[in-house]
Amino acid sequence: MKPNSSSLFDGVLARGEVAAAVGDEAWLTAMLQVESALAQVQAFSGLIPQADADAIAACARPEHFDAADLGARAEASGNPVVPLVETLRTLAGPAGPSVHLGATSQDVLDTAGMLVAAQALRPLLADLAACADQAARLAREHRDTRMIGRTLLRQAVPTTFGLKAAGWLGGLDAARRRLDQVRRERLAVQLGGAAGTLAPFGDDGPDLVEGLATILGLGEPVLPWHTERTRIADLAGALGAAAGIVAKVARDLTLMAQDEVDEAAGGSAAADRRDPVAAVCALGSAGSAPGLVASLLAAMAHEHERAAGAWHAEWRPLRELFVCTGSAASWLRTALERLLVHPDVMRGNLARRGRPAESPDAAGVLVDRALQAHAKGL
Amino acid sequence: MKPNSSSLFDGVLARGEVAAAVGDEAWLTAMLQVESALAQVQAFSGLIPQADADAIAACARPEHFDAADLGARAEASGNPVVPLVETLRTLAGPAGPSVHLGATSQDVLDTAGMLVAAQALRPLLADLAACADQAARLAREHRDTRMIGRTLLRQAVPTTFGLKAAGWLGGLDAARRRLDQVRRERLAVQLGGAAGTLAPFGDDGPDLVEGLATILGLGEPVLPWHTERTRIADLAGALGAAAGIVAKVARDLTLMAQDEVDEAAGGSAAADRRDPVAAVCALGSAGSAPGLVASLLAAMAHEHERAAGAWHAEWRPLRELFVCTGSAASWLRTALERLLVHPDVMRGNLARRGRPAESPDAAGVLVDRALQAHAKGL
Amino acid sequence: MKPNSSSLFDGVLARGEVAAAVGDEAWLTAMLQVESALAQVQAFSGLIPQADADAIAACARPEHFDAADLGARAEASGNPVVPLVETLRTLAGPAGPSVHLGATSQDVLDTAGMLVAAQALRPLLADLAACADQAARLAREHRDTRMIGRTLLRQAVPTTFGLKAAGWLGGLDAARRRLDQVRRERLAVQLGGAAGTLAPFGDDGPDLVEGLATILGLGEPVLPWHTERTRIADLAGALGAAAGIVAKVARDLTLMAQDEVDEAAGGSAAADRRDPVAAVCALGSAGSAPGLVASLLAAMAHEHERAAGAWHAEWRPLRELFVCTGSAASWLRTALERLLVHPDVMRGNLARRGRPAESPDAAGVLVDRALQAHAKGL
Amino acid sequence: MKPNSSSLFDGVLARGEVAAAVGDEAWLTAMLQVESALAQVQAFSGLIPQADADAIAACARPEHFDAADLGARAEASGNPVVPLVETLRTLAGPAGPSVHLGATSQDVLDTAGMLVAAQALRPLLADLAACADQAARLAREHRDTRMIGRTLLRQAVPTTFGLKAAGWLGGLDAARRRLDQVRRERLAVQLGGAAGTLAPFGDDGPDLVEGLATILGLGEPVLPWHTERTRIADLAGALGAAAGIVAKVARDLTLMAQDEVDEAAGGSAAADRRDPVAAVCALGSAGSAPGLVASLLAAMAHEHERAAGAWHAEWRPLRELFVCTGSAASWLRTALERLLVHPDVMRGNLARRGRPAESPDAAGVLVDRALQAHAKGL
Repeated sequence: MKPNSSSLFDGVLARGEVAAAVGDEAWLTAMLQVESALAQVQAFSGLIPQADADAIAACARPEHFDAADLGARAEASGNPVVPLVETLRTLAGPAGPSVHLGATSQDVLDTAGMLVAAQALRPLLADLAACADQAARLAREHRDTRMIGRTLLRQAVPTTFGLKAAGWLGGLDAARRRLDQVRRERLAVQLGGAAGTLAPFGDDGPDLVEGLATILGLGEPVLPWHTERTRIADLAGALGAAAGIVAKVARDLTLMAQDEVDEAAGGSAAADRRDPVAAVCALGSAGSAPGLVASLLAAMAHEHERAAGAWHAEWRPLRELFVCTGSAASWLRTALERLLVHPDVMRGNLARRGRPAESPDAAGVLVDRALQAHAKGL
Repeated sequence: MKPNSSSLFDGVLARGEVAAAVGDEAWLTAMLQVESALAQVQAFSGLIPQADADAIAACARPEHFDAADLGARAEASGNPVVPLVETLRTLAGPAGPSVHLGATSQDVLDTAGMLVAAQALRPLLADLAACADQAARLAREHRDTRMIGRTLLRQAVPTTFGLKAAGWLGGLDAARRRLDQVRRERLAVQLGGAAGTLAPFGDDGPDLVEGLATILGLGEPVLPWHTERTRIADLAGALGAAAGIVAKVARDLTLMAQDEVDEAAGGSAAADRRDPVAAVCALGSAGSAPGLVASLLAAMAHEHERAAGAWHAEWRPLRELFVCTGSAASWLRTALERLLVHPDVMRGNLARRGRPAESPDAAGVLVDRALQAHAKGL
Repeated sequence: MKPNSSSLFDGVLARGEVAAAVGDEAWLTAMLQVESALAQVQAFSGLIPQADADAIAACARPEHFDAADLGARAEASGNPVVPLVETLRTLAGPAGPSVHLGATSQDVLDTAGMLVAAQALRPLLADLAACADQAARLAREHRDTRMIGRTLLRQAVPTTFGLKAAGWLGGLDAARRRLDQVRRERLAVQLGGAAGTLAPFGDDGPDLVEGLATILGLGEPVLPWHTERTRIADLAGALGAAAGIVAKVARDLTLMAQDEVDEAAGGSAAADRRDPVAAVCALGSAGSAPGLVASLLAAMAHEHERAAGAWHAEWRPLRELFVCTGSAASWLRTALERLLVHPDVMRGNLARRGRPAESPDAAGVLVDRALQAHAKGL
Repeated sequence: MKPNSSSLFDGVLARGEVAAAVGDEAWLTAMLQVESALAQVQAFSGLIPQADADAIAACARPEHFDAADLGARAEASGNPVVPLVETLRTLAGPAGPSVHLGATSQDVLDTAGMLVAAQALRPLLADLAACADQAARLAREHRDTRMIGRTLLRQAVPTTFGLKAAGWLGGLDAARRRLDQVRRERLAVQLGGAAGTLAPFGDDGPDLVEGLATILGLGEPVLPWHTERTRIADLAGALGAAAGIVAKVARDLTLMAQDEVDEAAGGSAAADRRDPVAAVCALGSAGSAPGLVASLLAAMAHEHERAAGAWHAEWRPLRELFVCTGSAASWLRTALERLLVHPDVMRGNLARRGRPAESPDAAGVLVDRALQAHAKGL
């Protein structure tokens, strides 16, 4: 056990597949993909020999690198790309001088970050889609299950559990839609050289950017965005909204699981527990998101052509924001998949004050609309 | 002067037109528009007499109400809609019972909030567009003005002032695009009644929502969203990103205005001052945004069918977020409009270390691309 | 109604006396006290004629100034002290040149801010003390009122309502203690002149600081702290903790007021309502605090001898943080004063699952300890 | 390399000894210390046989446990104490039933958290003390080194580098003083059993708490504080303030290191680099703190006798807040230790506009005061 390892809380706060998708191996793999792709497009443009690009591609494999070692060596230069490039040059032997040609550390780390984001959004979107599907199932199954609606936590007027679940569904779909939009429109290659001018690449700069985008499956930006961080902000905002809607659903689940309310139970990782552990852990995970979004937004004022701190200030919050949002979504999926709904108790709670049998028929129509919207997909 | 008035800092931190657009008068007007439109669509559906709707429309004028009074009376019920409705009913006389029929306070306040947001986005988008146009002008005028690029605040390699301005432009346009998208896609009517079921409106519920949306110029939601706050989150995220990019540009301006750098000056509200007051105030205004976004995201976990606190927790942060972002944009517009660029000093700074005459020709191509993208509009 | 007035939400989110204590009148009064006291100590040191100091004191009255006007004029200079001094100089006539001698705007605004903080802490501490006294009363009265303890919102093992209230008490006292400590130890005069050197005051600088501190009842700092903002940070942290403990108590109250739990009711501003409006509004008010604390902490990196934005970025968040914390405390006081406790329901909830009669006698001892600690005072 | 390991950025953002002090091994050791100490005091009170306590102490060693395994198993129960206790009981064999007797998971994790905090504050306070000593050295050495004072980043009036350094010193000492106070006054044992009543321990409860406090070197609280989180809030506020003052000093260093200003250089981890890497990384590390403080404050509203999410929401932010503040302090220490001051350039910058030779003699007096205050210690 390394003294500064930090997995003790991971079962609770880093659940699901997103955490690994933003872990060291993912970052390392992504950085090496960028270096390799850069060499490839430079070979294609005739800036370096094709043989060098091939040699680089052969060396640029995660198994030849140790993220912890790179992390430690990053202390000298202030970022992990410098030691990565050193090692890659050594490994590449005669092709060494063709490694990282004209690029700056931020080109590699920012582009790698976009690749990592693209990868991490997959399991996140999958878990959120599963949550939405579960909410849709509950909305469908309980389209006409009447229960009391509660305002300020007090009994108000009747609603249906189907409509409550449809409300969850609507929010989950909205969050998914935005995340998917950010994935499609805002994840882009960063390449610019030391000052973002593309000067080191001569007239080939724009072609290299286009080529990199094609190889890596990322967008081609109009300009280098090394100090223009709206992409990070958009990603942060979308993740924060996703964590927020997960928290809303989880909050409802914990309230419904109270003994005195008892309208739903279970939803725990351990099938035999009645405690709403999964919903609780979803809330515990999601709780970190707003502060992390604030950190990323506060880091947007990058100075000149490379920030004096604000860039570095993004790395951990962005990773953490993915981890906590992913963990929250993973927990909510479990909570919804295992939820035991108690329609009889809902009826009982509705009746306890002799409520008039006001018919929330409109609720059914709303549920149908929500299900139709969900069925259309993103 | 009311003892708890708060305009002492407004010249600095609530500059421009956005602050008034989210002020009491705007909110009051919007709430009354909602009540009036609700009566109108209910009359159209035959739920209330047309004469009542006309009477309500005649009374629902801001000049008959006092926001401070409503604010004070809101203490009893926990929101300002209750006293507003009381007064409106009194004013409406015989039409009183037709006021606010079937609606809940949150329906009115949330829909009014969307109207206010729509109104406030206009001057905000206008100021950001002006900022972008100024950045475009600077990019065009200084397409070939060479200057030193700086990384970690140290001199690195040459760039052009045009490319720096083009980078600002790209970020400003990205922020505008997202804000405009939120404006078009995410501002929607909220109507649901006490528990969001539309039950009070019988079969007419969906028609009323559609009618309200048409009259008020807002979107028609699939479902009531009273406790599904991704719309607020999306708005918050877009405003936070806008504040962030304004801060980036303003930070650059303050750094360029240092005596020892002296590459740009002026940009103050007072034309004769060399201090970068406008950029400083832009930074001072924008600084509040990240924390406010966090507050709004943290408030997303609305309980059941009306939150026990989280809804109220949105009101001030959302208003403040508009105010600070609007103020920042207004200041940046001034800063850019009045900016005095010193190309000769840029040349001098570039030369001070005997830099090689590396040609950043690619920079010009990038500037052209940014200008073309800007010219296309949102 | 001024278009950008903002009192519509004040009944809910700016309740109590703290809001006025940080309002325009309070700030204006404080700034004038600083200018007046500065003249007085300068007269004492022979730097200006005593007659000038007297003339300044006679003019430095809030009724001669209009905060909104100063706020508007602040736009030109970037802070409201510049127009305040202009007006004061005009009013002072021949004594005009003795106004604000050697001081810088930040000296006046920062010292005024400390005076405002000292004033605002009084009603805040009073409301928190009343909350603590109420919690103590509940702990005493219900020392042996048994109820179910709940973990993860599920019934766990027995506790007493007295111990629950004692827990509230302990937290409220801890928050009060820290706020009072900040009040006594961290509120200090700021005087330094343009660069914080005291140079404009020659050898008299330290004496002026000491004199100002004596007159204004603030601490005497070792150094000017114009760009050393730990005082603001400490204040922010203490306010944030106070808002947090208020939120904890209010959260419990809303949960206890659920119909299905029904262990406590009332606590509304309107005596006849059963909705936990006061607790809800306490939560709604307190919800803004964490983000505002983050804004103030993020603003600590003041550049050189006066920040290029970070200073301005403190003004609104600090005011807002006082307002929201004060409002939360005021609401909680009401909620606790009017709380209707239902010991019989507590017994019933405890019995519903046939709990063993485990005796929480230790709870009584803990309650006694908490009451003794509270009785000792801060 | 585990796929979700996260050390790639540690050289930059988790520098120094604090990160390890809040790592898995530290937490694991602390949890085992708590279990062991609990058995010891229970044996002393006759609640369990002394032989059992000895057996537990013999088994409760970190080398018998795997934090990653515990973290993974924590998924089932929602916290890592449950699997830890399971393993410890197995290891303890016949003494197994005496393990964790009457305690709840939160007792162990909260008390362990306080131990971890106490341990982590040591290197943090040491690094901050080293920073303060360096600032004191600079203040002393440059007591009379004149330089230009800058307001809004523009040249204003003369000051001395000694006074600037003294300002840093004052802030660093204030942050240290508060952290040390929190360490002495607010780190306390948590023991209460499932609902915080001490009921499982009968009349021995208070004695057990006292005994635990003595053995573990923590404070003895008046009451269990499992859902009263002002201790966490105070810790968070103090860490946030420390990060903030580090950021202030680091910001000044980066500005002074600009080529055009050039008043100080170096301060890099690599002795031969002129880039202000250490100051940049200090800023990058400190940038995370405000958002993390907000997360911890927002998590204060713990429900009833164990929070449904808010408790879990503390774990990662508290760890991260220590890591980022510790990293920032470690970097600043390096930056100050290796700082190359250029008094001649300071003189040159001061002269460039033909400033009058206004004598900032008062500055020397202020420096002396700051040094005296520092010499007194905390």
